[in-house]
Amino acid sequence: MSHPLFEKHRATLDRALQAIADRGYWSPYPESASPKVYGEGAAEAGKAAYEATLGKPFPIELPGAVGRVGGERSPYGIDLGVTYPKVDLDRLFAGVVEAQRGWRAAGPEAWVGVCLEALARINRASFEIANAVMHTSGQAFMMAFQAGGPHAQDRGLEAVAYAWDEMRRIPASARWEKPQGKGDPIRMEKHFRVVPRGVGLVIGCSTFPTWNGYPGLFASLATGNAVVVKPHPGATLPLAITVKIVREVLTEAGFDPNVVTLVAHAAGDDTAQKLALRPEVRLIDFTGSSANGNWLEEHAHQAQVYTEKAGVNQVIVDSTSDLPAVARNVAFSLSLYTGQMCTAPQNIYVPRDGIATAEGRRSFDEVAKAITEGVQKLLGDPARAVEVLGAVQNRGVLDRIDKARSLGPILLDATAVPHPQYPQAAIRTPLIVKLDAGDGDKYLSEWFGPIAFVIATDSTDQSLAIARDAVKRHGALTLSLYSTDAKVVDRAIDVAEDAGVALSINLTGGVFVNQSAAFSDFHGTGANPAANAALTDAAFVASRFRVVQHRRHV
Amino acid sequence: MSHPLFEKHRATLDRALQAIADRGYWSPYPESASPKVYGEGAAEAGKAAYEATLGKPFPIELPGAVGRVGGERSPYGIDLGVTYPKVDLDRLFAGVVEAQRGWRAAGPEAWVGVCLEALARINRASFEIANAVMHTSGQAFMMAFQAGGPHAQDRGLEAVAYAWDEMRRIPASARWEKPQGKGDPIRMEKHFRVVPRGVGLVIGCSTFPTWNGYPGLFASLATGNAVVVKPHPGATLPLAITVKIVREVLTEAGFDPNVVTLVAHAAGDDTAQKLALRPEVRLIDFTGSSANGNWLEEHAHQAQVYTEKAGVNQVIVDSTSDLPAVARNVAFSLSLYTGQMCTAPQNIYVPRDGIATAEGRRSFDEVAKAITEGVQKLLGDPARAVEVLGAVQNRGVLDRIDKARSLGPILLDATAVPHPQYPQAAIRTPLIVKLDAGDGDKYLSEWFGPIAFVIATDSTDQSLAIARDAVKRHGALTLSLYSTDAKVVDRAIDVAEDAGVALSINLTGGVFVNQSAAFSDFHGTGANPAANAALTDAAFVASRFRVVQHRRHV
Repeated sequence: MSHPLFEKHRATLDRALQAIADRGYWSPYPESASPKVYGEGAAEAGKAAYEATLGKPFPIELPGAVGRVGGERSPYGIDLGVTYPKVDLDRLFAGVVEAQRGWRAAGPEAWVGVCLEALARINRASFEIANAVMHTSGQAFMMAFQAGGPHAQDRGLEAVAYAWDEMRRIPASARWEKPQGKGDPIRMEKHFRVVPRGVGLVIGCSTFPTWNGYPGLFASLATGNAVVVKPHPGATLPLAITVKIVREVLTEAGFDPNVVTLVAHAAGDDTAQKLALRPEVRLIDFTGSSANGNWLEEHAHQAQVYTEKAGVNQVIVDSTSDLPAVARNVAFSLSLYTGQMCTAPQNIYVPRDGIATAEGRRSFDEVAKAITEGVQKLLGDPARAVEVLGAVQNRGVLDRIDKARSLGPILLDATAVPHPQYPQAAIRTPLIVKLDAGDGDKYLSEWFGPIAFVIATDSTDQSLAIARDAVKRHGALTLSLYSTDAKVVDRAIDVAEDAGVALSINLTGGVFVNQSAAFSDFHGTGANPAANAALTDAAFVASRFRVVQHRRHV
Repeated sequence: MSHPLFEKHRATLDRALQAIADRGYWSPYPESASPKVYGEGAAEAGKAAYEATLGKPFPIELPGAVGRVGGERSPYGIDLGVTYPKVDLDRLFAGVVEAQRGWRAAGPEAWVGVCLEALARINRASFEIANAVMHTSGQAFMMAFQAGGPHAQDRGLEAVAYAWDEMRRIPASARWEKPQGKGDPIRMEKHFRVVPRGVGLVIGCSTFPTWNGYPGLFASLATGNAVVVKPHPGATLPLAITVKIVREVLTEAGFDPNVVTLVAHAAGDDTAQKLALRPEVRLIDFTGSSANGNWLEEHAHQAQVYTEKAGVNQVIVDSTSDLPAVARNVAFSLSLYTGQMCTAPQNIYVPRDGIATAEGRRSFDEVAKAITEGVQKLLGDPARAVEVLGAVQNRGVLDRIDKARSLGPILLDATAVPHPQYPQAAIRTPLIVKLDAGDGDKYLSEWFGPIAFVIATDSTDQSLAIARDAVKRHGALTLSLYSTDAKVVDRAIDVAEDAGVALSINLTGGVFVNQSAAFSDFHGTGANPAANAALTDAAFVASRFRVVQHRRHV
């Protein structure tokens, strides 16, 4: 029997199923923040809704609340002043386990229907969430809107579509008739029930709390699991708003809202570890450091663990017909959100004897200069620069910039940019340092933030060899190549497929290597140390449910 | 571009895809050992082929061979005298890594085509393999033929079908066109390549070397991984023959045979652990003890680990319209292959105040007696008994029988049955002991072998409560219910779905709770401690490959 919310959103789901099958462009949630799309006054209303949450207890009631916790401070220099329930985990999980019963029994169409309705409502709250993402991650508003709103919702819907695509293939029942020679066949009827694994735990990050959080949240929820959301202490509000909306939908649909709960906590405590080792937790979705991700993979044996961790993203410059366009594209990739993206490039390999371009040979220094000038040009106007850069999310990024300055000759120093509205925001342009292929000890680890290295190599062959090895040993989410030589392109494809990293070739237009589009790009491969899973594919959802059968003769 | 072996077996694959979708009865490999099916002389030729392997070095050449290892002894009392290469693991893996290159590049249709051809040839070797299974596992011949031959091949094909079903959904390429308002859309072409995880390790067991080994072997191979097969030291020959056939197919298809290799080893050494922790190994399929399975889950972090471990299988007797039929069915399940099946029932719960039957109320003792008499009747004729019981696989089973005798009042003692042809075989009828619901410390662990307990409970409600708790805490592959009460059946279904175990209801005919049919029954649920995976579902295959993409503007 179908569920009304499933029927309501059936057309969206069907279109999403088509999208994951053909992987062309599709997005149901408009990325344009225009009033023509989201309605007159939507932006203002969303901002007002966000501001109304500030300086107050966040309106969510959870089992086991034993106090309040808070302390988020906007990278733009404002204390949010929001507090959340601090929960006793034993009592919280008692409530979750209670809530699981009805949810577990509801079946795939109800699970998926509730997810689709929640995503539709989250989409309507895009402006509120955008402000919350901006003032926790430090992203500039338009990026916070797009990446934290519709693009994150796309990733959530993608996970729901994959989950449904796997679950729908389990028949509800089967008739089994085994021939017995001349005798009557043995006849049985079998029934197959999709059951969830248990409780899913989503561990959020501070830079993309919704974009990285929604795939795991909706993949687990759509397969019948309860979900405990543990946001980063510095970026709790976007996920708190999300959880609140999902709980409202659950309640209206007749379910216990504790199917989805929030565990806010203070920075530096051991809440994540405690949650991860709870026996009820059978699925964990994590985005964050390699140290924490590896800890989960090694210790949370009771759970299936999906991690996205650190990596070393690389650009190989071999040759180009349009060096200025290469420089513009790379400059934007380095600058966007101050390089605080898991997909942002860090190492740019250029042969030390230069490259071929349409205008003839360009030396290593000329190529490096084109890139640094590209950055300067992009960020020359402070008013425009702050909309590209956003703000530095945390102190660690500033420290890292300082440390990186001593790694080698500085091609372009990081400089502070004043924000016209938010004077307290720490805003930095990228630091670009020159290194040599032999400096692997410096460039073969992740320098998260606006830190890039232009690295002189003996040849493109060496660039490819270094890139292959770096992906295999240190992980990567992206690899980028610029080459006009079809043989080099083929070799780079071989390297990417061997090392297991997504490759972008000759990006000189309006697509950047940091960008990954739902329904089309697999974000991460799960095939190198930067991530053990991809967003989203069948492997990301298929282990989140099990099938239990019963059979009898007929 | 398709592969000739893929095209050759396309119809079989398509039919298998239909079978996993509707999960009705289907088998491409006939379970009848009749000459009408397998050809005149096939049985004799297979036996001769088996006998020709005895007392000799097994004909397989492997990288890193540094000596020979052997020592299999048939449970029917014959030393097989077969020796296998003992390999240096570093050198073996150097060969495997070398072999991987061409295999990895060949793509899904070649991987699947080679698997399908290998399965077809394995099917033709069913009689040879049946003899090898019989003389390693101790199964009687007909069971060794069916379970070790066609039924195992079914399970292998099922895994290939699931693997293909997941891989075929990844488009080779996509065109991505993102609208840009009034401007030209951004156009990209994207290419998606399915790549394997690395090396799969299959750790075989001594009781069902092929049936439990083929799913992992073929799931990993069909997704492009190299596979290292590590058989149980007591049951190496069936998998050695299998590996030899797969290597022949690989060679004929132009691949390096070291895509599939064999690591035979001496009992009690640490070969399994050493293999499991090798960095090249990214997939492990294990069947065996909970201690070893849990060790793998906790230590082999570099790999995705699929385990089938110990459990406590249970029968709940509530009421019946045909007590003799219940007794016959249960008796056969207890006796088949001397209870040495991961699916064999162990605990039989009967209310202490008896049950309702078509002939009126029957006391606990009458129900227990019906079962013990069912066993006696089934096994009364020694010539027939040995064909049901097979032989005890190892000394541990005999020791366990001795130990179990002191657990409570013996309802039916295990007795030795002489084998007319194999006087040295240890053949035992089931031991049936009476216990009380309060004796959980005795019956709530696995007593692998022909050991069953008839357990007096306060009521069917208590039986269900014990069963639920036992599955959740100790795991189970099967649960069986006998009841004429629709409400009890519904409650048992609830228990099964909550605890995550397959339920068989009122089996009184030719189907037994120990039997699990490929393409229809999910073997194991992955939802309780007895197994972390099911044979076979999408979750069993989806994580065995990854997708690597490249994209560029068009």
